[in-house]
Amino acid sequence: MGNYVVGIDLGGTKIYTALANLNGEIVAEEIEPTTKDETKLLHQLGNMVKGVIAKSAVPKEKVLGIGIGAPGTVDHRTGTLITAPNLPWQNYPLKINLQALLRLPVEVDNDANLAALGEYRYGAGRGHKDMVYVTVSTGIGAGIIIDGQLYRGSSGSAGELGHTIVEPGGPRCNCGRRGCLEVMASGTAIGERARQLVAEGFGQEILKLAQGNIEAINAKTVGEAFLAGDPEAKGILNEVAFYLGIGLANVVNLLNPSLIVLGGGVINIGEPFLELIREELAEKALPQPYKDLTVKKAVLGSKTGVMGAIALALERFS
Amino acid sequence: MGNYVVGIDLGGTKIYTALANLNGEIVAEEIEPTTKDETKLLHQLGNMVKGVIAKSAVPKEKVLGIGIGAPGTVDHRTGTLITAPNLPWQNYPLKINLQALLRLPVEVDNDANLAALGEYRYGAGRGHKDMVYVTVSTGIGAGIIIDGQLYRGSSGSAGELGHTIVEPGGPRCNCGRRGCLEVMASGTAIGERARQLVAEGFGQEILKLAQGNIEAINAKTVGEAFLAGDPEAKGILNEVAFYLGIGLANVVNLLNPSLIVLGGGVINIGEPFLELIREELAEKALPQPYKDLTVKKAVLGSKTGVMGAIALALERFS
Repeated sequence: MGNYVVGIDLGGTKIYTALANLNGEIVAEEIEPTTKDETKLLHQLGNMVKGVIAKSAVPKEKVLGIGIGAPGTVDHRTGTLITAPNLPWQNYPLKINLQALLRLPVEVDNDANLAALGEYRYGAGRGHKDMVYVTVSTGIGAGIIIDGQLYRGSSGSAGELGHTIVEPGGPRCNCGRRGCLEVMASGTAIGERARQLVAEGFGQEILKLAQGNIEAINAKTVGEAFLAGDPEAKGILNEVAFYLGIGLANVVNLLNPSLIVLGGGVINIGEPFLELIREELAEKALPQPYKDLTVKKAVLGSKTGVMGAIALALERFS
Repeated sequence: MGNYVVGIDLGGTKIYTALANLNGEIVAEEIEPTTKDETKLLHQLGNMVKGVIAKSAVPKEKVLGIGIGAPGTVDHRTGTLITAPNLPWQNYPLKINLQALLRLPVEVDNDANLAALGEYRYGAGRGHKDMVYVTVSTGIGAGIIIDGQLYRGSSGSAGELGHTIVEPGGPRCNCGRRGCLEVMASGTAIGERARQLVAEGFGQEILKLAQGNIEAINAKTVGEAFLAGDPEAKGILNEVAFYLGIGLANVVNLLNPSLIVLGGGVINIGEPFLELIREELAEKALPQPYKDLTVKKAVLGSKTGVMGAIALALERFS
């Protein structure tokens, strides 16, 4: 009957926990909203692991270990969450504490890294050796696969594509720098630009889609207006595609991957927006690395993170 | 007495050929100006190889193979020079032709890649696993070492840092795009900016250092004026350091290397200029990847390329 691993996608709003066999096939899963209490969160994770094992009727001895993906800065060698703005934890030794609670080996990594690993092993990345996964969502992050391995960099923080600078002297980013890709092209940036437009008396189509509530305008609203043909939404997304084109072309010219996988809510606006990004990338990448490049949408959807956590656990414990 | 390899640094102006033992120690070397005749160049390379072997009195049977670094786009799998603006060759099958001429195995790679490999094995990179070598000279290029291996990308063109975009809508680069790092911060860009300044009636200190000949002004002249305290030269180099800071910070945030090695004529302006670059990088890199980063000057000088070619030959043929 073989052995199993647990994968956990620990997000700021929900936790996706799954038990999978050695082929990465999920045999039991649970999704719960994330507890905001810093002491209860560890127990929630413990209970969810016990829950999926119980649900599957797999004996606990057959579970080899647990992989966890967490948003923020993770020291994967020690399994410590260093900073995680959307979780109640800071400098939190997640690996050690969860191991002690469950008496199972635990491995922790950054969510973008694990999303890359998930798409690489089980999704859009199959058959490629050098791949970069880019998520454009509330923030912008990347995970880099080189020669079939997750590349973490010398201190585990590689992949901060969102904080590469694409507009010198541009608006201030959350990280304190100016003109980072994240402040120019993330979902947050799209929403802000649209609300500003409306505050200045423009963007009436966008406002209508938000039921007249300026505070309800976000990237999704802009995406809907864009798909409905609104020129102001198109203006915003043209600019976003321009900067995403720079960020992606810089990755292509520097790393020459065979594949870029795009995921996250902003990418899900749809094919016409993806087409804008492709056009900008085609214009800004060098011909030599571009001619062998494939650009695909992520295919695992809401399972990308948990599949990456499963892949991590399988790499380390099987 | 052991075996030997030949390394060739095939530059646009000169060719540096050396015979080295298995420790990478040079036992014989020759430097000649590069023939501009496309049919004679192959024979020049052949004669230089025969020359260093003869000079060393090493029997030809003891020579395992030849590594060559060439400027431009190289397909290292086939050993073809695809484009090499400074050589009389285009789509030239260097590996096959030199092998046929000398009856020795040949391996060809891009000069920036081999400079990275040279500094990694024999220079500033010793002891590091993830390193990026950046040369700032007539153009700007990079070579990436990941996990102790030269990283070439999926079609051999990784490392085009000079064509990452750092100023959207900036001046037109030779590659046809706008605002590439190379057009903002290379030696060529420094010379052009200074000549433009002088043409507008400014930059008199710089002009004086060029003996009043505006056409003779280049990056070296600007460097000398800067070191002598000229505020206009400092203005130019401040801006160059600003853009180099962006390009390098983007590498650091994306790849989190433990070491960046800086080489090339513009870097040789001296320590005060290197200090400007360090300040910009410190400001623009994220704290997490920056805290473990070392930035060093290349140490092999004019031998960087030939040592990389020797390292390539040793990797493949010993």
